[in-house]
Amino acid sequence: MSEETKVALDLMGGDNAPKAMIEGAVEALKENESLKIICFGNDEAEKELERFDFDKDRLIFRKTAEVIATDESPVKAISEKKDSSLVMALKCVKHGEADAFVSAGNSGAILAGGQIIIGRIKGIKRAPFAPIIPTDKGPALLLDAGANVDCRSENLVQFARMGAVYMRPVLKREPRVGILNLGAEDDKGNALVKETFPLLKEASDIDFIGSVESRDIPFGAADVIVTEAFTGNAVLKMYEGTAKLLQKLMKKAFLSNIKSKIGAALVLPSLKEELKNYDTKKYGGAPMLGLNGLAVKAHGSSGSEEIKNALLQCIDFKNQHILESIRDNIGIT
Amino acid sequence: MSEETKVALDLMGGDNAPKAMIEGAVEALKENESLKIICFGNDEAEKELERFDFDKDRLIFRKTAEVIATDESPVKAISEKKDSSLVMALKCVKHGEADAFVSAGNSGAILAGGQIIIGRIKGIKRAPFAPIIPTDKGPALLLDAGANVDCRSENLVQFARMGAVYMRPVLKREPRVGILNLGAEDDKGNALVKETFPLLKEASDIDFIGSVESRDIPFGAADVIVTEAFTGNAVLKMYEGTAKLLQKLMKKAFLSNIKSKIGAALVLPSLKEELKNYDTKKYGGAPMLGLNGLAVKAHGSSGSEEIKNALLQCIDFKNQHILESIRDNIGIT
Repeated sequence: MSEETKVALDLMGGDNAPKAMIEGAVEALKENESLKIICFGNDEAEKELERFDFDKDRLIFRKTAEVIATDESPVKAISEKKDSSLVMALKCVKHGEADAFVSAGNSGAILAGGQIIIGRIKGIKRAPFAPIIPTDKGPALLLDAGANVDCRSENLVQFARMGAVYMRPVLKREPRVGILNLGAEDDKGNALVKETFPLLKEASDIDFIGSVESRDIPFGAADVIVTEAFTGNAVLKMYEGTAKLLQKLMKKAFLSNIKSKIGAALVLPSLKEELKNYDTKKYGGAPMLGLNGLAVKAHGSSGSEEIKNALLQCIDFKNQHILESIRDNIGIT
Repeated sequence: MSEETKVALDLMGGDNAPKAMIEGAVEALKENESLKIICFGNDEAEKELERFDFDKDRLIFRKTAEVIATDESPVKAISEKKDSSLVMALKCVKHGEADAFVSAGNSGAILAGGQIIIGRIKGIKRAPFAPIIPTDKGPALLLDAGANVDCRSENLVQFARMGAVYMRPVLKREPRVGILNLGAEDDKGNALVKETFPLLKEASDIDFIGSVESRDIPFGAADVIVTEAFTGNAVLKMYEGTAKLLQKLMKKAFLSNIKSKIGAALVLPSLKEELKNYDTKKYGGAPMLGLNGLAVKAHGSSGSEEIKNALLQCIDFKNQHILESIRDNIGIT
């Protein structure tokens, strides 16, 4: 049996808190025996929790007074709301009581809090937000997708190396690392890309395949796509927004008249089959890499299934020794 | 009758050159009497042209010896291939012989050539590439989508103002101008956005609506979206790539079995109806704004319809006095 994995869970973040978080936690405990959860929430969460049947040694509740809202200024909220569920859960990792942190709350507060409270591995300059995105050739990692704007070339090189460490056990082969660029030619790019390109070429521990254009990302042009957080965030959200718009248009077309409704009923099974690999629910959440512990940010709209998967994902992260691998190979030892 | 519009057309650029360019030109002449085309191409193009019937006073051929390929280094190609169709067509605008330039060739060469050969309006620091993108609420303008990386805040402010000048006659109302950002909150952003934000707030000639997240662009969150070229290019190509992937998956689902094929036949008319507003063919090409003449970059895969529409688009640009409006209101007079 594998070692115990302890996760600090913020019950109060996200659109469906605390109900979805509690349901997800209870389900995750059933699916994996090596999981232990310490969860943080207010009176409402405590009451909700009483409705469920679970092992109190494996799901421990700690009451917190404050809640950080989605629209609060991240750094201010972290420094002022010291008794919030989000801050207390992060501290639980900082103090070594938990291996990992999961929250669907205020993105900025999670990304800032991860670096400020849990802290970075010695030698890691910036901790990127690294969501797995589905592509035509399987999962790919996009980093940094939102944590560190105005990066320098040395940051991007660390992102590339950490991304490869993370994706190796996921893909069970050497990941192809690409840098996001304006064109496929090597001489294209802004100042940051031009400075980073030769450094990535020299990095001996990654398989650097050169420039990747965003239009080729959905088709699996690279397994790890490196960029700074402003552009990475724009790419991630454009993927999401475009897919959402097309779903809306498809739905509208399918419901527009009787003929379409009948047709839709006939094509839906195949359509669902084709799209099932693009369901981001199964990835649960996106990790920040390079911290002294794992911090997973689940989508604000997460339901119980996403939270369950985010919790189970922490077990893989621990068993694959991602943290140790980053510390020993990329950090300063 | 409106004044004559003269367009310099590069016959040798793009995947379907020179045939699609010639067909597009001949069709455009039929659709609008005020159009005159001066086209540039090699022996092959001249031969192809002989197969068509057209008014030789309105479609003038000029033979050029060289062709700039898609994968050539842009600045090098422009300075060395002085007798190429692309360079000769640009010079035709520079010398005032034509009002506008159209090419589906080497993007980098068009974007660099526009600024180097045609030249910028006095006072305009950078000339952005400004494609119209379809959204759920109608056309929107994204700029800069690929011409000027590593921009400064003053460049972005000019992009915003030029974008508004361009979109006013298209929408026939005051365009809502947004700046691309990581989140909707005003205090988010990288250094460039934080510096640009207050300047856009102060600009009295635009309706600045604040930050726009890329996920909301397909839903029409703004009519003009301002960003620097590296991120703008990534957003544009992610829109394209995601739509392409979803089309591929839909097609695969529709053809997967007999039941789906029947269903597809029933839903296709409604689906086409819903998607018709997202057909980028009708926009023809994307302009560069701020030059002493119009330069339109058509997609590399353009067929005759796109080229025809790109040529007709030049007539609107001239009749709406976009160039004069930018020169008098934003340039130094």
